Amino acid sequence: MTSSNTLDLSLELLKQPSITPNDHSCQDIISQRLAQIGFEIEAMQFGDVDNLWARKGTQGPVFCFAGHTDVVPTGHLDAWTSQPFAPEIRDGKLYGRGSADMKTALAAMVVATERFVAKHPNHHGSIAYLITSDEEGPAVNGTVKVIETLEQRQEKITWCLVGEPSSTHRLGDIVKNGRRGSLNAKITIQGKQGHVAYPHLAKNPIHLASKALNELCESVWDQGNEYFPATSFQVSNIHSGTGATNVIPDTLEITCNFRFSTEVTADELKQRVVAILDHHKLDHHIEWNLSGQPFITPIGDLVQATQTAIQKVCGYATELSTSGGTSDGRFIAPTGAQVIELGVLNATIHQVNEHVNVNDLEPLAEIYEEILVQLLT
Amino acid sequence: MTSSNTLDLSLELLKQPSITPNDHSCQDIISQRLAQIGFEIEAMQFGDVDNLWARKGTQGPVFCFAGHTDVVPTGHLDAWTSQPFAPEIRDGKLYGRGSADMKTALAAMVVATERFVAKHPNHHGSIAYLITSDEEGPAVNGTVKVIETLEQRQEKITWCLVGEPSSTHRLGDIVKNGRRGSLNAKITIQGKQGHVAYPHLAKNPIHLASKALNELCESVWDQGNEYFPATSFQVSNIHSGTGATNVIPDTLEITCNFRFSTEVTADELKQRVVAILDHHKLDHHIEWNLSGQPFITPIGDLVQATQTAIQKVCGYATELSTSGGTSDGRFIAPTGAQVIELGVLNATIHQVNEHVNVNDLEPLAEIYEEILVQLLT
Repeated sequence: MTSSNTLDLSLELLKQPSITPNDHSCQDIISQRLAQIGFEIEAMQFGDVDNLWARKGTQGPVFCFAGHTDVVPTGHLDAWTSQPFAPEIRDGKLYGRGSADMKTALAAMVVATERFVAKHPNHHGSIAYLITSDEEGPAVNGTVKVIETLEQRQEKITWCLVGEPSSTHRLGDIVKNGRRGSLNAKITIQGKQGHVAYPHLAKNPIHLASKALNELCESVWDQGNEYFPATSFQVSNIHSGTGATNVIPDTLEITCNFRFSTEVTADELKQRVVAILDHHKLDHHIEWNLSGQPFITPIGDLVQATQTAIQKVCGYATELSTSGGTSDGRFIAPTGAQVIELGVLNATIHQVNEHVNVNDLEPLAEIYEEILVQLLT
Repeated sequence: MTSSNTLDLSLELLKQPSITPNDHSCQDIISQRLAQIGFEIEAMQFGDVDNLWARKGTQGPVFCFAGHTDVVPTGHLDAWTSQPFAPEIRDGKLYGRGSADMKTALAAMVVATERFVAKHPNHHGSIAYLITSDEEGPAVNGTVKVIETLEQRQEKITWCLVGEPSSTHRLGDIVKNGRRGSLNAKITIQGKQGHVAYPHLAKNPIHLASKALNELCESVWDQGNEYFPATSFQVSNIHSGTGATNVIPDTLEITCNFRFSTEVTADELKQRVVAILDHHKLDHHIEWNLSGQPFITPIGDLVQATQTAIQKVCGYATELSTSGGTSDGRFIAPTGAQVIELGVLNATIHQVNEHVNVNDLEPLAEIYEEILVQLLT
């Protein structure tokens, strides 16, 4: 195993026990490297969250690497073969918490930028970094606050590459060029408690809601489009009843989730749910939680540069996807930026013995560098 | 307040702390009184339950008084104004655990029988007693076992009066001449767990079952008849979900109860439920629990004798009802016996400070005696 700049920087970052929202000096390490090649460094602390905004160049277009230095907790230490913050290479794999999600991608970004700047000192536009320590936590004082700050001073990102582990079977096989929106609802249906032997004196919320529940489950919300599958609705929890077999319960609680495409808005979904409940004359209360708007980066400069770079470095075509959960891309895309996610394999993220293939690190840096070449030269 | 035989025997029985299934000598007290007027006494112990079968006469028809000596637990003693097993009269009310449910009725039966036998030594048929100490408990080693024993030796009850507190506003205003059946089902619908973002890889049991649930809630099971309201179906509990908002659960559990008339059988209800679940191609498992068959005593000898007796003693008409929960009548009726329930007011049963009107005790004994007159002379 030959040493490499990407591996060295990865090891340095992986030694920091930066459990969310603690950055534990990771952003300092990155800042020092970027400052040496002409970046202006701006630390943005909000609450207990460290954020870094770094930029080289004053002109547009702006290419931004985005990511996070925080990692999820380790779980039981006994279950790890090597200690989670003592990175170790075994059988060609680099083990450590954050190795896949996403410190090796951060290292690859920095190394790619250093090499690109050295080779192309007079590149077009600007290169920027938007790094937070609050992606794995509540995501309140992280990317969303940095974006607010940039918007206030009218500083725009043209292209954004989020280093989230997008790869599934081999490096670069999947690039996320969007995400579905996610809307949660906790619906409470009010009935009236009573004895099962006297149903005329009670109002059974399960019976009252059964038709509306069926209608929600069978509704077609949209047909999707070329980038998104049709919007899906899933009930994750349903609870009613006192435990006794002879008591009609007074309330029914239903928790449900929409994963929605760009063909429908969160407000439209809310209106349609309320209309169904109202149509069935239900006494209802709904707590809504919009955890992410959908976004899409259609095929254009950024997607094409990424496709070209992966083909060049890996020798195969990448696939565009909008599947899976949400990421901080949801906060950046609404500014009008093109956003994609590209990183290492995601098979072991958030797990014990999280790891990456050591042989993927240099190719990832090469892909990142080639994307800069495609867009800024 | 003048002393009376019914009150005296009531006090004697109420002093026995016969918390279910402990008889605590109550059946001995009753047996001694019955033996003195010519009854043959047969103690039938099953497990920890004392049962009494007593009979005077060898010919049919057989009139049987049925009841129980056990009482429900007292609850917090501090909440009682007088001690639950130290019966006390205050303001014309007799307080004590079991005063309403149903030791005063037992006393009234014995006193009525003594008076009737004294006045009509050559009455027709036989008089019997079926008394258990397991009505408030699991009801496994009580009336059901005595009935099995009688059936085995082909000993039949023609008319049965259960002394359960049937009265609602004044003594004898309501007589129960039947009860609905009660059938419980615990239905488990099997799905397949998964992530809400990937519903095509999972099978959501809530979605799969929603149409069948609606069909169960909206089904008409029968139209009832002159004695019973239409069979009712109520879901008492529905549960599914891990608590997480992003996980599709693997199973759905529904607990439901039928209160059913004599227009449908438990087996027919089971078949119809299974047919609905099968029609919707659900992977289901059902645990059935038949807690009582419906029974009805149409207007005939027993009902008419009871109506006449109440009119004579109280001066008003009684009302027939099949409402409310189950009683030991469900075990006696299937033998072909006519069964009614008639006792004191049920307003305070199973409560702290359980009590009856002292002035209802002698009239109850008179009603019981008059029923014997109507049927056996």
